[in-house]
Amino acid sequence: MRLATLRLDGATAAVRVDDDATATVVDGYSDLSALLADPAWRDIADRAAGAKVELAQADYAPVVPHPGKIVCVGLNYATHIAEMGRQLPEHPTLFSKFADALTGPYDDVVVPAYAAAELDWEAELAVIIGTDAYRVAAADADAYIAGYSVINDYTMRDYQYRTLQWDQGKNFEKSSGFGPFLDTGYTLGSRIEARLDGEVMQSATTDDLVFGPAALVEYISHIVTLRAGDVIITGTTGGVGHARKPPRYIGDGQTVEVTIEGLGTVRNKTIVAE
Amino acid sequence: MRLATLRLDGATAAVRVDDDATATVVDGYSDLSALLADPAWRDIADRAAGAKVELAQADYAPVVPHPGKIVCVGLNYATHIAEMGRQLPEHPTLFSKFADALTGPYDDVVVPAYAAAELDWEAELAVIIGTDAYRVAAADADAYIAGYSVINDYTMRDYQYRTLQWDQGKNFEKSSGFGPFLDTGYTLGSRIEARLDGEVMQSATTDDLVFGPAALVEYISHIVTLRAGDVIITGTTGGVGHARKPPRYIGDGQTVEVTIEGLGTVRNKTIVAE
Repeated sequence: MRLATLRLDGATAAVRVDDDATATVVDGYSDLSALLADPAWRDIADRAAGAKVELAQADYAPVVPHPGKIVCVGLNYATHIAEMGRQLPEHPTLFSKFADALTGPYDDVVVPAYAAAELDWEAELAVIIGTDAYRVAAADADAYIAGYSVINDYTMRDYQYRTLQWDQGKNFEKSSGFGPFLDTGYTLGSRIEARLDGEVMQSATTDDLVFGPAALVEYISHIVTLRAGDVIITGTTGGVGHARKPPRYIGDGQTVEVTIEGLGTVRNKTIVAE
Repeated sequence: MRLATLRLDGATAAVRVDDDATATVVDGYSDLSALLADPAWRDIADRAAGAKVELAQADYAPVVPHPGKIVCVGLNYATHIAEMGRQLPEHPTLFSKFADALTGPYDDVVVPAYAAAELDWEAELAVIIGTDAYRVAAADADAYIAGYSVINDYTMRDYQYRTLQWDQGKNFEKSSGFGPFLDTGYTLGSRIEARLDGEVMQSATTDDLVFGPAALVEYISHIVTLRAGDVIITGTTGGVGHARKPPRYIGDGQTVEVTIEGLGTVRNKTIVAE
C-alpha cells in the first residue's frame, strides 16, 4: 500500500494511492502524521472511500509532515566507509532534524543568501514508524515500521562544520524534500541515487547499510520511544558535493533529484533569495 | 506571571499560579504546549477562572510537555570556558533533545542498567518561545520569548561519546526534569546550581552566558522557525560529574537538584532498574 499527504483546497489530506493513477482521500485525517497516530491506521487507509484525486494534478506535502522525531544517521554505507579507508563503526552516529526542515517532494527550496554558501545533497532512505516502539529487539522491529520513503537530507555544510555538532547544518527551514509516498511494502536492496541537474552524483543500493532499519529501531528504541509517525533517515553514501575535489554545491536555480528505485523521486529546485 | 502543567484526575491541565499557594486551571487547554499554541495565551492565562488547585498537593508534569523542538546549547558559560583555557566560541554549538526525554520536575528518573553507567547532571536555564519567530533580530527577541524555566539536561556520558555526535547521550526516555514553572517575568543574573544529594556540584549566574537568550533566538531563527512552545536550553557551567577527577556519576537512589534563584528547583531521584 502507498500513502501520501496532498495539499487540497487550502488544507492537506491523507490519501491512499490507487492503481489507476488516482488517490482516495482518507476522510478525517489531515495528513499522514494524523493518520499514523491512529493505531488502526492500516485498516482505515485500506478501507478509505473518500474523494478521488488525479495524481497527475496532485500537490504533494511532505509525506509525513509533523514527525515528533526525525533521527538522522551518519556514516552508514559500508562500501563508502571502506573506500574512505575507515573502520566500520561499532555504534550508529545519530543526529536530529526538526519537522520544520521538511518540505514537499517537488517544492522549491528557498534559501536566503546568508545560508546559501555551501548547500549540499544527501540521498537517503527514510524509515517511518507505524507503532510506538520502546526497547524493541531487531528481530521484532519490522512490526513497528509503517513503511519507507525518500528524503534529501539537505545540508548547509558551512553551518554543519561551524561547531563540532552537525544539527544546525541539517535544519534549514523547509529544505529537505520528503516523499512522495510512504510505501508499506518496500524491501531493501534497490538503487538509491542523487542527481544534480541530471548528473548522477551518488549511487548505491539500500542493502549496503551498516545499521539497517531493524538494527536502528532496536538501538534507538533502547534510548527513547520511537512513536508512530516518527522518522529515521538512514544515512548517505559517497558522492556528496562537499567531499568532491573541487567541492560542488547547489547553486541558485539548480535541481536535486533523489530516487530510490521502487519508492520514487524527490525533486527540488533551489532558489537563492534575499 | 507563573504557569505550570499539572497532572489532575488522570489527565493534565494548564494552570496559572496564584499568590495564595494555589493555582487556577486554564480551562480548555490540556497543558502549556496547548496553551502556548494559542496566540492569545497570555490574556487567556491572565483571565483564567477555572478550578483552584492547592499547590502543596500538586503533581507537576514537564512544564511544557510537547515542544516541537528543544534546541540545546553547549559550551556557553564564559567563566567556565575561560577557566578551561579555551577561546570563547564564535558560533553557538547546538544539539537536540526530543520531548520524550522530558520528565516532571519531581519525578523519579528510571534508567535501565544498560544505560546507567555514566549518568550526569547539567544545570540549565530554559527559554520558552511564546510567538513564532523566523529571522528575528536579537534586539526584538524578547517579544518572542514566553518566559523561562529550569531543566536538568540529564546526560548518559557513555552514549554521548560513543560517536562524535552528542544527541544519543541527551535523549534518554523521561530523564530531564523540566519545570516546575514557566515564569514570564524572570530576568537574567540569578544563581544557578546543581546539587547531588545536597552537595553543590555546579554554581554560576545566568548572566554569564556567551550567547544569551536574545542572541540564541536571533541565531536559531535564522536557520529555522522557532514556534510558540519550542524550548532553547542554554548550556551548563563547570562542575559536571564526567569532568571531575575522579569522575562522579549519578548512582541508584541519588537525587539531583537544579535550582535557579527566582525560578525554582527541579529535584529528581534516579532509580536504576532492569
